[in-house]
Formats: sequence, C-alpha cells, structure tokens
Amino acid sequence: MNAEIIAIGSELLTPFRQDTNSLYLTEKLNQLGVEVIFKTIVGDDRGRLTGAASLAVSRAEIVIFMGGLGPTEDDLTREALADALGLKLHRDPAIITSLEQRFAARGWKMAPNNLKQADVITGATVLPNANGSAPGQWMSGKYEGRERIIMLLPGPPHELKALFEEQCLPRLRVKLPPQFIATRELKIAGLGESQCDARVAPIYKLATDVQTTILAGAGEIQLHMKTRAASLEVAQSRVDQLVGKIEEELGDCVFSDNGDSMEQIVGYYLQMRNATLAVAESCTGGLLAERITSVSGSSRYFVGGAVVYSNQLKTAFADVPADLIEKHGAVSSEVAAALADGIRRRTGATLGLGITGVAGPTGGTAEKPVGLVFHALASDGGTEVAERRFPGDRKRIRRFASQQAMDMVRRKLM
Amino acid sequence: MNAEIIAIGSELLTPFRQDTNSLYLTEKLNQLGVEVIFKTIVGDDRGRLTGAASLAVSRAEIVIFMGGLGPTEDDLTREALADALGLKLHRDPAIITSLEQRFAARGWKMAPNNLKQADVITGATVLPNANGSAPGQWMSGKYEGRERIIMLLPGPPHELKALFEEQCLPRLRVKLPPQFIATRELKIAGLGESQCDARVAPIYKLATDVQTTILAGAGEIQLHMKTRAASLEVAQSRVDQLVGKIEEELGDCVFSDNGDSMEQIVGYYLQMRNATLAVAESCTGGLLAERITSVSGSSRYFVGGAVVYSNQLKTAFADVPADLIEKHGAVSSEVAAALADGIRRRTGATLGLGITGVAGPTGGTAEKPVGLVFHALASDGGTEVAERRFPGDRKRIRRFASQQAMDMVRRKLM
Repeated sequence: MNAEIIAIGSELLTPFRQDTNSLYLTEKLNQLGVEVIFKTIVGDDRGRLTGAASLAVSRAEIVIFMGGLGPTEDDLTREALADALGLKLHRDPAIITSLEQRFAARGWKMAPNNLKQADVITGATVLPNANGSAPGQWMSGKYEGRERIIMLLPGPPHELKALFEEQCLPRLRVKLPPQFIATRELKIAGLGESQCDARVAPIYKLATDVQTTILAGAGEIQLHMKTRAASLEVAQSRVDQLVGKIEEELGDCVFSDNGDSMEQIVGYYLQMRNATLAVAESCTGGLLAERITSVSGSSRYFVGGAVVYSNQLKTAFADVPADLIEKHGAVSSEVAAALADGIRRRTGATLGLGITGVAGPTGGTAEKPVGLVFHALASDGGTEVAERRFPGDRKRIRRFASQQAMDMVRRKLM
Repeated sequence: MNAEIIAIGSELLTPFRQDTNSLYLTEKLNQLGVEVIFKTIVGDDRGRLTGAASLAVSRAEIVIFMGGLGPTEDDLTREALADALGLKLHRDPAIITSLEQRFAARGWKMAPNNLKQADVITGATVLPNANGSAPGQWMSGKYEGRERIIMLLPGPPHELKALFEEQCLPRLRVKLPPQFIATRELKIAGLGESQCDARVAPIYKLATDVQTTILAGAGEIQLHMKTRAASLEVAQSRVDQLVGKIEEELGDCVFSDNGDSMEQIVGYYLQMRNATLAVAESCTGGLLAERITSVSGSSRYFVGGAVVYSNQLKTAFADVPADLIEKHGAVSSEVAAALADGIRRRTGATLGLGITGVAGPTGGTAEKPVGLVFHALASDGGTEVAERRFPGDRKRIRRFASQQAMDMVRRKLM
C-alpha cells in the first residue's frame, strides 16, 4: 500500500517552520509495509486545501491530513475534505459534551467558535484526543470510487503521536495485509563516508532484498537496513546476515548496532569497567562535556572537567606547564597530552581526555591550519595522542573533535 | 506572484531525511514579494514526478524543482518536466565539453551516464553550476497556455544556494514587479510565550499592514515582522514604527533587534565593557560554555571555566566549601552563589557565572523538583542569584538554564 501525507498550516510555508511530524508517520507506516509516495504542504486556504485533498485521494491509497483541526477560522481541514469528497459535516453532540467538560474542568466557559471542532464528516469515526481539544477522524471505505483509508490528525506533535499510536495503528493493522519487516541500524566512527561506502557497498549490493541507506554526519556514519519477507524470522535473519557481514568488514569501526549514540556507548563502557572520566577541552569549548552529560545518569561515570579556553586556565585547571605552551604552542600534541594527564590527576578520574585545536574560521596558520585538532587520552597505562585535520565550519569541526575524543575512550575500554 | 517548490528524491520520503532547501528558497522568494503556496515532496518515480510537475505548472506561477539532475537512472527531473509540458530534450554540446573538462581536471575519464546531465529542455536556458556537475535550467514563457517561470536546481544545498543567488535571483528581479518589502526581527528573553503575546498582541494587531509571526524556543521568543509598500522607505518606516512600539512595551526584555543570538549579544557587551567571563556549571554540563564559545573570537572575553558535575569538583575547581554543599545541598542558591564567586576568583575574570539544578528526568524530589535551577552571577559589586523552575525535558531545561545565565550577564552589563 502507499500513502500521501498532507501537512496543513500557513506557518509551514514560511522560512521559519517545518513539518517534522511526517518523519514520525513515515517510520510508523514503513513498519507496516506502507510506502510514502508524496508529501504535500499547503496553507490555510480552503480552495487550495480542497484541491490538494481531491488529488491525494485520487493518487494514494492512504491519505493522512495533519493540522487544521482547531477552533479558528483558519482551521479548514474538515470543511475542505468534505468538499473534496462531496460529503456533509454534522455536529456531533458527544464531542460538544466532551469539549464543554474539558473547558469546565479548567474553570473556563467554552467560546462558541469551539463548536466547530465537533464537526464530523459523514461516515467518519471520531478519534478522541486526550491531549488537546481537537479530536481526529478515521475514514475507511470507497471514496470517489476507490478503496481508501483517510485520517485527520491534530498538528501538535505530542497530540498527533499519541492519537496515531493508540487509535490509528491498531485500525491500520487490521486493514493491512500482514507485513513482516525487519530493520537494523549500524553506527560507524573512524571512517569517512566514501571510505566506508567503498568497503561496504560490495557487500550490501549483493543483498538485493535488503534496502540499505547511508547517512553521514561529522564523525559518524549511519547504515540503515530494512527488508520484508513472508515471516518475521526470515526478514530478521536476512537483515541480521547482512549486518553480520558488514560488521565483519568494518570491525571495531562499528560502535553501535541498536541505535545508541556515541555518548551512550561511552557511558556503558565506563560503567562496565567501573571507570570514571574527566575532560579538559579547549577548542570544543564545553561541547564534549555537554554531549557526555546529555545522557541522564552520566554523573555515575563523569566527574566533570575544565573548559580551558585561555592558556592561563590550561595551567590553573590542568597543570599544563606554561613553558610547554610557550615552546610547542597551545595547539600541539604535547599540550593535548598534558591536558589529559593534568585533568586526570587533578580530578582523580580513571581516564582523562584533552582536546586542543583550531576550530576556525580565524586563527589558522600555514603550520596549524583551521581544522587541526589534537586529542589525548590519559590512563594508568600512559597517554595516547591522535592528530586529525577535520573539514567544514566551526560547528562541524567541533562536532568532529568531540566525536573523535569519545571514540578514543570507546576503543580504550572495548 | 505565487510559487510551488518541488523537492525530488526518494530519500526525502524516508524517516531519516528532510528537505531543508525550501526554507532558504522561501525566504528569498518572500523578499521578492512571492508567496509560496505549495511544497511537494516526491520520489524518483517518472510517472509521479510528471504528474506533480503538470499539477504545479497548472496551479502556481513560479515552479521550482530541486534535485534529480544527477547522472544516475534515478535522476528523472529533466525527463519528467519535458513529459509534463510536451517538450523535447536535446543534448547540449557545450555542457558535454564542460563536463569532460571537469572530469579531466581531476584526472578522471567521464563515464557515459554523465552525458544525460547535458540534456536540456527545449527553450530552457542552461544555468552553469560552479560547485557540481549538474547544471540548472531556467524557463520563462507560456507553458500549457499560462505565463510561467520554471527553474530546475540541483539538490545539494551549497550548489542550490550559489546557483539560485547568482543566476536565478537577478532573472527573477527583472521579471517581477518591483516589490518593496521591509522585515525586522526582535528576540526576547525573560518572558514566557503567552505573557509576551498578551503584552504585544494588542500592539501588532493594530498594525494590520504588518505581518507578525511569533516563534517560541527555550528561554527565547522571536517576533518576525514583515510588510510591503509602494516604496522601501514607507515599508521600512511602518515596520520600524511597530518595532518601536513593541520595544517600548517590552523594555529590556528585548535583547536583539537585528538577528544576533544571545551568545553574540553577551559577547558584544563583554567586549564593550572590556570585561571577561568565566563559568562554573553543574546541570548544564558544558552547554553554557559551548554556546558562548560557538561564537568565533570568543577567546577575547571568555577565559573558560569548569564543568563541576561531581561535588568534589565543585570544591576543587570553584572552592565551594564541602560543608556548604552538605548543609544546603548541591542544588541550592548558596552553592550557585559559591560557584559564581569561586570561579571568578580562581580565574581572575571580571564576571563569574554559576549554575546548579535538576535537569532530570531522574533526580527530582518534592522539595527540589526536576526543572529547578539556581543561577548566580558574581561581580565586584557582589553576587546575585536567580531561582527558576523550567518546564520540559532534560534538553529543554538545560537550554533554558544556559539562556537565563547569559541573560543575567546581559542585564548586568546593559
């Protein structure tokens, strides 16, 4: 089966806002074997919305409308879809009662314009919305001579997700032929995109029944694999087989095979080894600590660290000798190592990370260009240093550097 | 005039990727007085793409296609648009020559499938692409009986932007009636969205000729204002007039009126006052330092700081007395003040910021719930503390807290 998703709202046609609900819906639909063939974004204009609705019902088997179910004059989804299908709206007394109760519970009186939210298209099933005032609607049957499933969902993401999950998914499962889809995701560090693709393409191209997508970020490549088969066991074993071959090829460059982030993986390893971590970061300016502490519970293994932006603080917080900085420069393998050693000693952590580099766009020289970063990891076994030259802008270079630093911890503890 | 933007590529119909080019194009089109009325996303399917192209040419005056201009079998935009308009493609010798030169310059031989990138729709003008192998195309005239402007642009953002900016904008300016559009943007801190709207809605609703959009983030509200008029002076003066009234109402809650971020504004003030800043952050875990150092040149006013995640580091790096933590708890107004004082003294910075709180989702208690954050700012005039209770998840609470801390610096130096 295929689907079209229509996002409604003039704010989605400004430079400031974007539909993100459709990513969630696409994932859920894909899991049921439904392919999304069109996404349309249309403003709060009755004529245009009616046109888009007619067209969608003519070209897709499942049509999902998001937004435009509120109480204002701009909320026109119900009216436009009724127009498009030549159907009528009726005002549902049960919705009116539930709207009144909702307002009364807050000590408010319902304004007359809210009544419009009780309008239901002939033949539609009302989908109560526990998180907002706009109920959804579900329609299934012959429309314009074709067998169709049509859903009207509220726009706010938390309302849409709860409503779709609880009320649309079970109904879709009944309607759709059983599909057995298996997915896997691998995350890879320490390889460039083209290097990675050159190694894995010969493998995944042989697995023609598995759909493989490569996405590349700063210091991280994701491989998404998906297949469908006559049973879940068969689908899963095909994907697992491919994953096995790719893992064999890439070895320890694969850091996650279940969706976990580098921050989470580093956290698991630190806890598993009963180890703690401290950081002294210069060019990343706090990003490394921020990423590590973005994981809830990170206080169990992360003691903290220092953002040693000035040379003075490199000495004050990580005991880097001033003459070492003088001799080799703040951006040097020696200073990176001293930062890692120093912060480890000062904090008593099992491991110390040091980062120093040129994030740019200014501050680069011929000898130490923008993108040059030194990373050091200190442990009781000694200190290792990695030198890298990252491409991109300040944001991307900092992201790369923080990823590389965490990857050193992962490889150390693996 | 109105426009439809069509983003082409099956990857844009997966859960992993999203069209973002259209935000850029919308901004540029709006500045020329062009309204975007539809956005369509369609996969690499010739039939569907042809249908989408026909429809767009029938309903919008300007149609922009993005993507699908590459050399592979999946790149079908040229063919589909030619089908939709009943036009032919011809292979352009000049493009072939330039493609061959492009490959030769890299020491490669051009593969035969690249020839397809030299296909031009009858009557179209070729738009050379300095950043990639796929040239764009510009068409202007009567299509399907209607006066239309049609553009084919490459999908990669840096190629699309350069090509649109240099080759499409000048052509559009010639074609479009002169439009005088003035825009302004205000950024606001220290007010909630509904508080802010309650104060400014009575003002902007009176200015019916100015379009006002409110966007709210964690600790920051943006007001975007736009108007068009018979001359730029008139348009600008109308927007400026509205901005003046809103600034009068909101006073020092407005921190930026030219698009600058809070990080940048804090940087300007620190430089203007010849002051330096150091931070000691617990619950934000490095986010505050990361945001401040995301600004290039921040080393001129930011000395660094400490991520004092453990209590031990609060003492080691910011001299917070262990018994103070014992007595009041790590999340307390007293510890926040001690962090700010301590980091200021330890680093010799003009100002010291301290943050401690409960970012959640775990770790909250009845007395100290998730979202409770204490912020302190130390200067030679003493130390002030602000207590806040932020809503949302861990990420949002940390963002709120970093914003509030920077806003304290701004208000101090204002």
